[in-house]
Amino acid sequence: MGILSFFRSSSKSSASVAKERLQIVVAHQRRENQRPDYFLSLQRDLLEVVRRYVTVSDDAVKVEVDHQGDCDILELNIVLPDR
Amino acid sequence: MGILSFFRSSSKSSASVAKERLQIVVAHQRRENQRPDYFLSLQRDLLEVVRRYVTVSDDAVKVEVDHQGDCDILELNIVLPDR
Repeated sequence: MGILSFFRSSSKSSASVAKERLQIVVAHQRRENQRPDYFLSLQRDLLEVVRRYVTVSDDAVKVEVDHQGDCDILELNIVLPDR
Repeated sequence: MGILSFFRSSSKSSASVAKERLQIVVAHQRRENQRPDYFLSLQRDLLEVVRRYVTVSDDAVKVEVDHQGDCDILELNIVLPDR
Protein backbone atom coordinates (compact mmCIF):
# COMPACT_ATOMS: atom_id res chain seq x y z
CA MET A 1 0.00 0.00 0.00
CA GLY A 2 1.48 3.31 -1.06
CA ILE A 3 1.79 6.55 0.76
CA LEU A 4 -1.55 8.32 1.19
CA SER A 5 -3.62 5.39 -0.09
CA PHE A 6 -4.07 4.47 3.58
CA PHE A 7 -5.77 7.81 4.05
CA ARG A 8 -7.82 7.72 0.89
CA SER A 9 -9.15 4.22 1.41
CA SER A 10 -10.32 4.92 4.91
CA SER A 11 -11.63 8.45 4.77
CA LYS A 12 -14.39 7.78 2.28
CA SER A 13 -16.29 5.14 4.20
CA SER A 14 -16.41 6.91 7.53
CA ALA A 15 -16.63 10.60 6.82
CA SER A 16 -18.92 11.19 9.78
CA VAL A 17 -16.48 9.66 12.26
CA ALA A 18 -13.26 10.80 10.59
CA LYS A 19 -10.17 9.79 12.51
CA GLU A 20 -6.79 11.43 12.50
CA ARG A 21 -4.18 9.21 10.96
CA LEU A 22 -0.43 9.07 10.86
CA GLN A 23 1.56 7.15 8.32
CA ILE A 24 5.31 6.59 8.45
CA VAL A 25 7.05 5.02 5.48
CA VAL A 26 10.74 4.11 5.55
CA ALA A 27 12.27 3.01 2.26
CA HIS A 28 15.85 1.75 2.04
CA GLN A 29 17.38 1.37 -1.39
CA ARG A 30 20.23 -1.09 -1.19
CA ARG A 31 23.34 -1.20 -3.31
CA GLU A 32 24.07 -4.79 -2.48
CA ASN A 33 21.87 -7.81 -2.29
CA GLN A 34 21.40 -7.55 1.44
CA ARG A 35 18.24 -6.82 3.31
CA PRO A 36 18.69 -4.27 6.09
CA ASP A 37 18.62 -6.16 9.38
CA TYR A 38 17.59 -3.21 11.46
CA PHE A 39 14.00 -2.79 10.28
CA LEU A 40 12.46 -4.55 13.28
CA SER A 41 14.41 -2.42 15.76
CA LEU A 42 13.78 0.70 13.70
CA GLN A 43 10.06 0.02 13.74
CA ARG A 44 10.08 -0.16 17.55
CA ASP A 45 12.18 3.00 17.87
CA LEU A 46 10.05 4.98 15.42
CA LEU A 47 6.91 4.15 17.37
CA GLU A 48 8.67 5.22 20.56
CA VAL A 49 9.46 8.58 18.96
CA VAL A 50 5.91 9.10 17.68
CA ARG A 51 4.57 8.34 21.17
CA ARG A 52 6.46 11.36 22.50
CA TYR A 53 4.02 13.51 20.55
CA VAL A 54 0.78 11.58 20.20
CA THR A 55 -0.95 8.82 22.15
CA VAL A 56 -0.81 5.55 20.24
CA SER A 57 -2.26 2.28 21.48
CA ASP A 58 -0.72 -0.96 20.24
CA ASP A 59 -3.84 -2.07 18.39
CA ALA A 60 -3.97 1.23 16.50
CA VAL A 61 -0.77 0.38 14.65
CA LYS A 62 -0.64 -1.65 11.46
CA VAL A 63 2.80 -2.59 10.19
CA GLU A 64 3.67 -3.70 6.68
CA VAL A 65 7.05 -4.66 5.25
CA ASP A 66 7.43 -4.82 1.50
CA HIS A 67 10.26 -5.39 -0.97
CA GLN A 68 10.26 -3.83 -4.42
CA GLY A 69 13.34 -4.55 -6.51
CA ASP A 70 16.38 -3.36 -4.56
CA CYS A 71 14.18 -1.43 -2.18
CA ASP A 72 12.93 -2.47 1.27
CA ILE A 73 9.92 -0.63 2.58
CA LEU A 74 8.64 -0.42 6.15
CA GLU A 75 5.20 1.10 6.61
CA LEU A 76 3.54 2.08 9.90
CA ASN A 77 -0.12 3.03 9.67
CA ILE A 78 -1.45 4.55 12.86
CA VAL A 79 -5.00 5.61 13.74
CA LEU A 80 -4.77 8.42 16.28
CA PRO A 81 -7.21 8.51 19.21
CA ASP A 82 -10.01 11.05 19.46
CA ARG A 83 -8.96 14.02 21.52
CA MET B 1 8.20 14.41 -4.36
CA GLY B 2 6.49 11.11 -3.71
CA ILE B 3 7.76 8.00 -2.08
CA LEU B 4 10.29 6.18 -4.25
CA SER B 5 10.57 8.96 -6.84
CA PHE B 6 13.62 10.10 -4.87
CA PHE B 7 15.20 6.75 -5.68
CA ARG B 8 14.08 6.59 -9.28
CA SER B 9 15.26 10.09 -10.16
CA SER B 10 18.71 9.56 -8.76
CA SER B 11 19.55 6.00 -9.67
CA LYS B 12 19.37 6.42 -13.42
CA SER B 13 22.00 9.12 -13.80
CA SER B 14 24.68 7.56 -11.63
CA ALA B 15 24.39 3.83 -12.05
CA SER B 16 28.14 3.36 -11.84
CA VAL B 17 28.41 5.08 -8.47
CA ALA B 18 25.10 3.95 -7.03
CA LYS B 19 24.55 5.13 -3.48
CA GLU B 20 22.41 3.58 -0.81
CA ARG B 21 19.48 5.78 0.03
CA LEU B 22 16.98 6.02 2.82
CA GLN B 23 13.69 7.85 2.58
CA ILE B 24 11.36 8.53 5.50
CA VAL B 25 7.92 9.95 4.86
CA VAL B 26 5.60 10.97 7.67
CA ALA B 27 2.05 11.90 6.70
CA HIS B 28 -0.47 13.24 9.22
CA GLN B 29 -4.09 13.47 8.17
CA ARG B 30 -5.83 16.03 10.32
CA ARG B 31 -9.46 16.10 11.31
CA GLU B 32 -9.40 19.74 12.20
CA ASN B 33 -7.92 22.71 10.47
CA GLN B 34 -4.77 22.65 12.55
CA ARG B 35 -1.27 21.93 11.38
CA PRO B 36 0.59 19.58 13.67
CA ASP B 37 3.10 21.65 15.61
CA TYR B 38 5.43 18.79 16.33
CA PHE B 39 6.81 18.18 12.83
CA LEU B 40 10.06 20.05 13.46
CA SER B 41 10.75 18.14 16.67
CA LEU B 42 9.65 14.87 15.09
CA GLN B 43 12.06 15.44 12.21
CA ARG B 44 14.95 15.86 14.65
CA ASP B 45 13.95 12.79 16.66
CA LEU B 46 13.48 10.59 13.59
CA LEU B 47 16.96 11.46 12.38
CA GLU B 48 18.33 10.65 15.81
CA VAL B 49 16.70 7.21 15.62
CA VAL B 50 17.98 6.50 12.11
CA ARG B 51 21.50 7.44 13.24
CA ARG B 52 21.42 4.55 15.71
CA TYR B 53 21.54 2.22 12.71
CA VAL B 54 23.27 4.05 9.88
CA THR B 55 25.82 6.85 9.67
CA VAL B 56 24.19 10.02 8.38
CA SER B 57 25.99 13.32 7.92
CA ASP B 58 23.97 16.52 8.11
CA ASP B 59 24.58 17.47 4.50
CA ALA B 60 23.31 14.07 3.34
CA VAL B 61 19.80 14.89 4.52
CA LYS B 62 17.26 16.74 2.43
CA VAL B 63 14.04 17.71 4.19
CA GLU B 64 10.77 18.63 2.52
CA VAL B 65 7.48 19.61 4.14
CA ASP B 66 4.36 19.53 2.03
CA HIS B 67 0.63 20.04 2.58
CA GLN B 68 -1.97 18.28 0.47
CA GLY B 69 -5.56 18.96 1.44
CA ASP B 70 -5.99 17.97 5.09
CA CYS B 71 -2.70 16.12 5.06
CA ASP B 72 0.72 17.33 6.26
CA ILE B 73 3.70 15.50 4.87
CA LEU B 74 7.26 15.45 6.18
CA GLU B 75 9.87 13.88 3.92
CA LEU B 76 13.46 13.05 4.83
CA ASN B 77 15.69 11.99 1.93
CA ILE B 78 19.03 10.62 3.06
CA VAL B 79 22.02 9.52 1.00
CA LEU B 80 23.88 6.86 2.98
CA PRO B 81 27.68 6.87 3.03
CA ASP B 82 29.76 4.26 1.20
CA ARG B 83 30.74 1.45 3.49
